[in-house]
Amino acid sequence: MSRTVYVNGEYLPEEDAKISIFDRSFLMADGVYEVTSVLDGKLIDFEGHKVRLERSLNELDMQKPEAFDDLLEIHRELVRANEITDGLVYLQVSRGSAGDRDFAYPSEDVKPTLVLFTQNKPGLADSPAAKKGIKVISIEDQRWGRRDIKTVQLLYPSMGKMMAKAAGADDAWMVEDGFVTEGTSNNAYIVKGNTIITRQLSNDILHGITRAAVLRFAKEAQMTVEERSFTMEEAKEADEAFITSASTFVMPVVEMDGVPVGTGEVGSVAPRLREIYLDESRKAAV
Amino acid sequence: MSRTVYVNGEYLPEEDAKISIFDRSFLMADGVYEVTSVLDGKLIDFEGHKVRLERSLNELDMQKPEAFDDLLEIHRELVRANEITDGLVYLQVSRGSAGDRDFAYPSEDVKPTLVLFTQNKPGLADSPAAKKGIKVISIEDQRWGRRDIKTVQLLYPSMGKMMAKAAGADDAWMVEDGFVTEGTSNNAYIVKGNTIITRQLSNDILHGITRAAVLRFAKEAQMTVEERSFTMEEAKEADEAFITSASTFVMPVVEMDGVPVGTGEVGSVAPRLREIYLDESRKAAV
Repeated sequence: MSRTVYVNGEYLPEEDAKISIFDRSFLMADGVYEVTSVLDGKLIDFEGHKVRLERSLNELDMQKPEAFDDLLEIHRELVRANEITDGLVYLQVSRGSAGDRDFAYPSEDVKPTLVLFTQNKPGLADSPAAKKGIKVISIEDQRWGRRDIKTVQLLYPSMGKMMAKAAGADDAWMVEDGFVTEGTSNNAYIVKGNTIITRQLSNDILHGITRAAVLRFAKEAQMTVEERSFTMEEAKEADEAFITSASTFVMPVVEMDGVPVGTGEVGSVAPRLREIYLDESRKAAV
Repeated sequence: MSRTVYVNGEYLPEEDAKISIFDRSFLMADGVYEVTSVLDGKLIDFEGHKVRLERSLNELDMQKPEAFDDLLEIHRELVRANEITDGLVYLQVSRGSAGDRDFAYPSEDVKPTLVLFTQNKPGLADSPAAKKGIKVISIEDQRWGRRDIKTVQLLYPSMGKMMAKAAGADDAWMVEDGFVTEGTSNNAYIVKGNTIITRQLSNDILHGITRAAVLRFAKEAQMTVEERSFTMEEAKEADEAFITSASTFVMPVVEMDGVPVGTGEVGSVAPRLREIYLDESRKAAV
């Protein structure tokens, strides 16, 4: 069955979902995005993603799409139309097409392009990787300076995933000036005793929606949270490590650059936080 | 009259030129490009652009488009069809569409997307700006680390143009660790006496096709060329300054951050190099 996708007000079969070659996301990566998880047919952290989308748009002086206030309904309609029980809804806003190429932003008359599509991921929350943990390698962080804005400039994260794959790993943690920034599409954490350590928010990393929720749950569970930079050396000596993202939730990391983290097995903190996050998110899902 | 553009083997009216929303240039800036000038209906430095395109593709492990060996003919056909005397031909290769979104590169079966279109620019070589010079501001260089690969990750250069515009200037020079890297879409030069100074080639800047030609012509004209980094402070005290790019050729810079460069008028070196470059390029045009 062909997926139904959303492009600028229309629900279309995916093979008919096309945009102009002059669209600014295609020509100059002038677009922002969000990915929202679906569990049991409901949206996880929808409001958080919407708020962050608005922030990304503001940071780039990009207009809100006309359908901004209808985003919840559009998400739900796509989930319904594509019979998604577990999966993802991808949303992208591009600055649109002025019908030609120019570095300067187009006039206000040029409306943003809004695209949404679903990805069906049966059993998303029961990923086998969550049970055995993932392996990461470390790579230099070569991305641009505003990683707090969720733009489609994802070529380097994409290259990072390929580097990880070539090294027999699942993902890469990026290092800048000696300190870990984050994973290619997730925030990075280490655990020492009862303390969770993750990099402080700044322009250097994405302000993860899942990150915010997990840190809140960790504090509620009487864990200590330290928001500070850490090195790969410190990470390799940690008791546990994990990542968070909208699509992987909380995922243990059991190996870094070929070195086992802690016992090399999944520890207790990451699975516990994963469970709390999934329980609470399902309760709050819309 | 509607432009004729090229998309994956077809010549189409521009309004019908569309690509899938799953194209990787749209979703993750996974594409590279070139812009070739047209003067008197002929292509300037075509071979240089083709060689650099091949390098960009190699650096990103991207397949050559099937029509790679036909690129000259495609350029010529678009120039003919759109009756371009003076203008530009824009070319983009995207890693293509696997019909869904994934950070990992798709399999070899997924063929790259090839898009070309023209821009009509009557009198391109007689730009009034070349006679009175342009104004630049300096901004922090926030781009990713591989600026030697000509990718479509152009959001920051685009933001830089808007910052320049807001400051009443024409363009921005980007500064990293205290030294000028380049302009938003051009290489940057200063002139002191008989010496031309421009940043050495590395991953930090684009390896300009026009840059290579202009430096060669400068040496042939008995000028000294120093390829080294320089600061904005040194630039503001230079006798002259200029930029080069495929679409502006050689363009004098007469003001930086509100400070006049040299006399604040167009000097003698930039116009001379512009003249030599245009003469020689027209002779070699294909």
